[in-house]
Amino acid sequence: MRHLLTLEDLSRADITHLLDRAEAFRALGQQRDLLAGRTVLNLFFENSTRTRTSFEIAARRLGADVVNFDVSRSSTAKGESLLDTLHTLEAMRLDALVVRHNENRLPDYLAEHARSDVAVINAGDGHRAHPTQGLLDALTIRQRRADFEKLTIVICGDIRHSRVARSDVHAFAALGAKDIRLCAPHALLPEDTGEFRGCAVTEDFDSALDGADVVIMLRIQKERMTAALPQADEDYFTQYGLDARRLAFAKPGCMVLHPGPINRGVEIAGDVADGAQSRILDQVANGVSVRMAVLAELLASRA
Amino acid sequence: MRHLLTLEDLSRADITHLLDRAEAFRALGQQRDLLAGRTVLNLFFENSTRTRTSFEIAARRLGADVVNFDVSRSSTAKGESLLDTLHTLEAMRLDALVVRHNENRLPDYLAEHARSDVAVINAGDGHRAHPTQGLLDALTIRQRRADFEKLTIVICGDIRHSRVARSDVHAFAALGAKDIRLCAPHALLPEDTGEFRGCAVTEDFDSALDGADVVIMLRIQKERMTAALPQADEDYFTQYGLDARRLAFAKPGCMVLHPGPINRGVEIAGDVADGAQSRILDQVANGVSVRMAVLAELLASRA
Amino acid sequence: MRHLLTLEDLSRADITHLLDRAEAFRALGQQRDLLAGRTVLNLFFENSTRTRTSFEIAARRLGADVVNFDVSRSSTAKGESLLDTLHTLEAMRLDALVVRHNENRLPDYLAEHARSDVAVINAGDGHRAHPTQGLLDALTIRQRRADFEKLTIVICGDIRHSRVARSDVHAFAALGAKDIRLCAPHALLPEDTGEFRGCAVTEDFDSALDGADVVIMLRIQKERMTAALPQADEDYFTQYGLDARRLAFAKPGCMVLHPGPINRGVEIAGDVADGAQSRILDQVANGVSVRMAVLAELLASRA
Repeated sequence: MRHLLTLEDLSRADITHLLDRAEAFRALGQQRDLLAGRTVLNLFFENSTRTRTSFEIAARRLGADVVNFDVSRSSTAKGESLLDTLHTLEAMRLDALVVRHNENRLPDYLAEHARSDVAVINAGDGHRAHPTQGLLDALTIRQRRADFEKLTIVICGDIRHSRVARSDVHAFAALGAKDIRLCAPHALLPEDTGEFRGCAVTEDFDSALDGADVVIMLRIQKERMTAALPQADEDYFTQYGLDARRLAFAKPGCMVLHPGPINRGVEIAGDVADGAQSRILDQVANGVSVRMAVLAELLASRA
Repeated sequence: MRHLLTLEDLSRADITHLLDRAEAFRALGQQRDLLAGRTVLNLFFENSTRTRTSFEIAARRLGADVVNFDVSRSSTAKGESLLDTLHTLEAMRLDALVVRHNENRLPDYLAEHARSDVAVINAGDGHRAHPTQGLLDALTIRQRRADFEKLTIVICGDIRHSRVARSDVHAFAALGAKDIRLCAPHALLPEDTGEFRGCAVTEDFDSALDGADVVIMLRIQKERMTAALPQADEDYFTQYGLDARRLAFAKPGCMVLHPGPINRGVEIAGDVADGAQSRILDQVANGVSVRMAVLAELLASRA
Repeated sequence: MRHLLTLEDLSRADITHLLDRAEAFRALGQQRDLLAGRTVLNLFFENSTRTRTSFEIAARRLGADVVNFDVSRSSTAKGESLLDTLHTLEAMRLDALVVRHNENRLPDYLAEHARSDVAVINAGDGHRAHPTQGLLDALTIRQRRADFEKLTIVICGDIRHSRVARSDVHAFAALGAKDIRLCAPHALLPEDTGEFRGCAVTEDFDSALDGADVVIMLRIQKERMTAALPQADEDYFTQYGLDARRLAFAKPGCMVLHPGPINRGVEIAGDVADGAQSRILDQVANGVSVRMAVLAELLASRA
């Protein structure tokens, strides 16, 4: 594995290996000698303090230097070509470039043009992929239920625009999940259903939850919510919000995940987010471990 | 001591212990192994590059990782609940959270909800407390005059809105200061005098300075200055500015402190700020040592 | 050497020593123990993510702590005196201050007032000097052609406002360059030719290139380009842009340098920037090595 751009091409063995490694780092906490002397550069074209901080902490706990490249103040913002920025940063001798961008496949474009000693890690591109999120969601589920072949997993929210949903589906499918159900109002379902082959698709959240072992709620943006359900603001929560009453339709002990930051009362009720079935904070903790695993996997074996 | 939120509850022995420890760090310069592998996160809701940098340098000199969480770009700024931010950061495995906020007791609120392995350090909340400033002011005075029971200390400026004044008074009172005098135009004196029990309060700076061993000038904001003394801008300096002529009313060798950044010619004359009696740069140096002591005290003994 | 403010006063031996040291760091990659425990503070009053990142990476690879002081959010931005900022930062115990400012000689002013244990490094002031750029350009040339006394070097672009041109000329002259030619439209040539004593000055780029061993293209700002050549936007490239046709006027193998970020199609054609004669990425790599050499030179020998 040279880059991490999407989970699409990863086998069950690949993903299992990364999750095992993340689990080991979770137990270990840190391993400062592993990437000592290496340089990881965060190149975030979209603001995401949480994800950036998670990568920063992960890299430091492996002993790497972390440089946050402030795109908004750089010449990249003033129209320097992206490849010129890439090659300039590479010339300073980078080991990994962690990229977030609102365009699909921008990290792939950088990876194609990157020097052979630079690993590109996709920290979220457009609505296409967010592979470390897919891995951390899989790890969070696996910590309680390793038997993916028996699991029914529901993903609910703005599926159409969600890179989280896409990477989750890639991870869960590779791990052999029995039944993956996508649920959203019509306007937020994927246009191209080929993208989510093998998943059940429904607009009815209550029935989607029937028999679910895991439910993943996606963050919803106000503009999209009102575009999808123009009647009234509260309608979204009424039809697609996860509250205790609705969670009862799922199997007892059904895990609740959310990539965060959560909108309380918008897509999830506060008491569910804070409740016994919520694994939301486990996801955050696993995020650091998964990013340590990815950085270690991509960098530690290189000269 | 689990958190540092205010100096109100600290005994003379507690404060003396912290100051002794700060003094030891001042001599030592650094002790990189003490907090190696620990993570300190700066969460500043108000800009304060100086205080943040002082905490950052202190934490690094003890070997800790420092993460500056950029609130203005995070989802906290977009309305994520503060407790969700707290719990998210905790899940990344923090050891200390250094918080500045314009609301009184916000750090206490975070401390109440923080995990038992996370220390919350107040880097200034509203006008309520700035405990590391109180400690560094006490240390600065103690380096020249350890006999607090003989000291007359004047604090002059916007007492009403000053967290510095409050934490200074807590520290000096605990250390047994003989006479603490607060001086300001009426509109900038505290509304609730109970808050400053035991302090003398006056609007006459000249008489306040009589017999003073220490004078602490507070930074004044233009808006408040003109609201307090609406006649003319220069009036403030004429009545409440510290110049050489006025400093002569105090005891010979009276120390001059200011939390910075200073407004030359507004609350303090440049020649006084730069003069032989000024301890302003000692305060800055002691700030790093005091923050090292607080971080060490709160974190080093934990597993 | 206590500070690095300009290359004007450096001898051939001084510069050669720094370049040799940079070459050694280039081979070594890092030397973490050399500046362990030292603090380098970046104080950038102009945005320059690239240069700041280069200094940050250099300092870290020598083991120093790096603090990026965010001027835009500090009290310096709100009118605190620059010397007060300097002395405050010094009191936190700095070892080096890396300064960029749009005023000529601002770093010299700071150096004059700095404590004797603080090194000031000029990272670019006004149009006056950018000494580490001069050094890295000299290093880049020397890696291919150490025989400066035989070299014809052309610098083309906005010479008048360029600190790069000034520091380049100081470095190349000290190293004994045979022939330094400055080329620009009249409005962008230096007003005071005494500043560039010993250089040939011309408005004709084609003739300037005749017999050149090295050509350094400067970045041009749109406003200045159109002020200099008001006819039409494309005129600048036609007359002063470096494309393959024009590069052929120079000697075979003539090196092409540019301090970056490049404007493709404005002052340099993309195929030239990416071509076999381009040394632009070597410049970036050498930038890190040169900054390591300067930091090591200024700091490593101090107590």
